[in-house]
Amino acid sequence: MNQQPAPANLIDKLAQFSDLWSQKKIAQLNDYEVKLAKLKGEFVWHRHDDTDELFLVLSGRLTLQLRDGDVVVGPGELYVVPRGVEHCPLADEETAILLLEPAGTPNTGDAGGPRTKAPEALA
Amino acid sequence: MNQQPAPANLIDKLAQFSDLWSQKKIAQLNDYEVKLAKLKGEFVWHRHDDTDELFLVLSGRLTLQLRDGDVVVGPGELYVVPRGVEHCPLADEETAILLLEPAGTPNTGDAGGPRTKAPEALA
Repeated sequence: MNQQPAPANLIDKLAQFSDLWSQKKIAQLNDYEVKLAKLKGEFVWHRHDDTDELFLVLSGRLTLQLRDGDVVVGPGELYVVPRGVEHCPLADEETAILLLEPAGTPNTGDAGGPRTKAPEALA
Repeated sequence: MNQQPAPANLIDKLAQFSDLWSQKKIAQLNDYEVKLAKLKGEFVWHRHDDTDELFLVLSGRLTLQLRDGDVVVGPGELYVVPRGVEHCPLADEETAILLLEPAGTPNTGDAGGPRTKAPEALA
């Protein structure tokens, strides 16, 4: 009998929430969290001094505004923002992403402020 | 002017190789490597004592044989094999996966043997 946890189906997990700019944890890899989020509009400029941050776009289109220029990440594309690099996510249309970074990484990095929000568990 | 590296397009990257059971590095996240691989057939039973291992199936179907039963991971599904858990990947059809684990994690874990192969860089 198979007693293993089921794989996480990304489409099913995305269907479980609709709130924007709210990270949902779906798996853990050592001390890293795998999270999903839905974005629309502009976030805040911030940086993470202690960690790189991986973005994989699942649907929509994510513009990572950087001080040296924009990086546009489309569906099925992956980008790693290096530690210390200021970035400001922007999504003109609703965009679904998978995020990977160490647990405890604040979503607003060094900036803090009212949009700071801890990840939520997603069953 | 945009001087940032381009995002990694997973479909484009998969089109750049055809050899099976050969991990291709496409990005680095801190001390972790993001890799692609194409699988068909059965690998070897092994475990990684020091790290969890993340599998995201991009196309095809991956059966992770575990000692307690099989986990079948389909396209768009993600599974983390916990550290210390013996597993043997099996793909009846050609299957493309994204792998994430610390750099230096041997593909054959504790088992070693002729199928041991270090990841290759993919431009």
